[in-house]
Amino acid sequence: MKALIVRDGAGKPELVEQPKPEPDAGEALVRTLRVGVDGTDHEVIAGSHGGSPEGDDYLVLGHEAVGVVEDANGTGLSEGDIVVPTVRRPPNGSNPYFERDEADMAPDGQYYERGIVGAHGFMAEYFTSPASALVQVPPELVDYGFLVEPISITEKAVEHADASRSAFEWSPESALVLGNGSLGLLTLAMFEQRFERTYCLGRRDRPDPTIDIIESLESTYINSTETAVGDIPDAYEAPDLIYEATGYAKHPFEAIEALAPNGVVAALGVPSDWTFDLDGGRFHRELVLHNKAIVGSVNSNVRQFEAAVETLGSLSESFLDSLITGVYPLEDFEAAFDNDDRTIKNAIQFSQYEERR
Amino acid sequence: MKALIVRDGAGKPELVEQPKPEPDAGEALVRTLRVGVDGTDHEVIAGSHGGSPEGDDYLVLGHEAVGVVEDANGTGLSEGDIVVPTVRRPPNGSNPYFERDEADMAPDGQYYERGIVGAHGFMAEYFTSPASALVQVPPELVDYGFLVEPISITEKAVEHADASRSAFEWSPESALVLGNGSLGLLTLAMFEQRFERTYCLGRRDRPDPTIDIIESLESTYINSTETAVGDIPDAYEAPDLIYEATGYAKHPFEAIEALAPNGVVAALGVPSDWTFDLDGGRFHRELVLHNKAIVGSVNSNVRQFEAAVETLGSLSESFLDSLITGVYPLEDFEAAFDNDDRTIKNAIQFSQYEERR
Repeated sequence: MKALIVRDGAGKPELVEQPKPEPDAGEALVRTLRVGVDGTDHEVIAGSHGGSPEGDDYLVLGHEAVGVVEDANGTGLSEGDIVVPTVRRPPNGSNPYFERDEADMAPDGQYYERGIVGAHGFMAEYFTSPASALVQVPPELVDYGFLVEPISITEKAVEHADASRSAFEWSPESALVLGNGSLGLLTLAMFEQRFERTYCLGRRDRPDPTIDIIESLESTYINSTETAVGDIPDAYEAPDLIYEATGYAKHPFEAIEALAPNGVVAALGVPSDWTFDLDGGRFHRELVLHNKAIVGSVNSNVRQFEAAVETLGSLSESFLDSLITGVYPLEDFEAAFDNDDRTIKNAIQFSQYEERR
Repeated sequence: MKALIVRDGAGKPELVEQPKPEPDAGEALVRTLRVGVDGTDHEVIAGSHGGSPEGDDYLVLGHEAVGVVEDANGTGLSEGDIVVPTVRRPPNGSNPYFERDEADMAPDGQYYERGIVGAHGFMAEYFTSPASALVQVPPELVDYGFLVEPISITEKAVEHADASRSAFEWSPESALVLGNGSLGLLTLAMFEQRFERTYCLGRRDRPDPTIDIIESLESTYINSTETAVGDIPDAYEAPDLIYEATGYAKHPFEAIEALAPNGVVAALGVPSDWTFDLDGGRFHRELVLHNKAIVGSVNSNVRQFEAAVETLGSLSESFLDSLITGVYPLEDFEAAFDNDDRTIKNAIQFSQYEERR
């Protein structure tokens, strides 16, 4: 079968031939339909994040997949089921985090991430996975199933942010998403369903397709080159929830300042080291005197994938279609890794779904 | 009656004669027994925090009080009940935060704080209070009732910190208290009941009475001049919960680094502005990749005062006695405001409790 890999240090993806995998006990064999490309894939390809499995000098890419069960292999699944795989796997059989379906909370050394670190990903014509790590998707969502993984990231982050505000009566009305990439836009669409007013910050000028999407969601676009995060309360309002999806290292500090009293910052971006001047006294005081919180969040678990399937079904096809810049056949995979200003979300088609009669 | 006030700009407390207050409808008249002195009182006296009620050029001090109901005035209370008043009051009759007993979550402008900002405090021979803001204390705790307020501050902070970790199975084993003042030590005693291992950071050398108390609690004292917060994971362990009670502006950043994965920092100190160099990228990344959180917390509500009464009853008298440096008669009030290295917690006695037959 064909697979897309990155060799250690190569800096670019490569299409190779590999043996078709065989499922172990408890695993199903899945025929891959689509796999999305995101910022983490670009970091993995560049060698700035993740790493190949022990003993291999390459990594099969891809962690945002949807496929169809080809061989249920005695698991509870059925051939023809459409499934999305979760990303984390235990390094040595299992550990308590996986046993209680909290793989997302496992610390360093207690997880691999398929297509990212320590385990091969899903950018191959077939993959195997424990059935317990496969979440079913209804056939009508098959084309968008590769978006379940990014949506699940937000399901978790919002669950943790909400939990942090659960010791009192919190009635948030407004939310700000920092970042207009595909995760930011998916999150904005989710927030549109919940909050009375939403805002999305980017640094692009018009005309831009992401600004069109933001406005089609009846959200307000804020150009960071014109309005800094710290100026948002005066220019618009102080948001109750701020979702950080850019990895810009100054954002958490600016966001705590911009938040409404009793608000929360959900931090998801992963910046590199960057030392700068900060009024840490003011940050600390603002946190305390206005009962604010910051919650960091990474990865997501089976329950959050299941919530993401529900959410996916609630988003309009026109929104989802506007998000997807291109779905490329495997032979054109290089185009899927283009990352220019017009690209919102690309995916690669590994095979076609044919509905059963 | 006698009252302890600070005149605007005077920088020191003064004993004055005032008319005995009369309770309004819904209020009880309370004869004051003891009132504690804390760091906020010193800030209020110095003029660096809080402010006098509108129209007055002085503030009656004190927010950590215990008293006995002298005139129940038709409220549900009875004469002779021992009560502790909460601190916040609504500026204009009421507002939604007070109506749902979440005065602690009220933003700026929607609360006064008795003895701190906008409303006179409890350092007087009598005070009035709405009965709904008076929490009953059993007679056997009367001598320690002035500690209910500071304990309630920790009840709230821990409630919010726990809430922030409630979206997953969190089984914390260790906690670190930053600060060995009276609030830090009360918190440490509470943590000793819950965590398997506790640590308390201060900057004092032996011999020191707070170190003796820390060790009598079977907790580990960490001298910050020898072991910085960032070195605690290597020297001891990475704590699951870190409680910041000093207001040292760098602590939240150092604490996020020192925390165990999935841990939480409860921030309570209130620092002044202080700009310094910070690796904000590392801080942000550490929050995200290890699912960490910071929760700021200020003040406390009736429910948390009630929890604090329960907690007070669970603490040993020998611990509580060791915490109380001195209880001074009203005429010696100046000694109660001494704040040297030997002082842990002072209080002023306004009148004596006499048990009813």
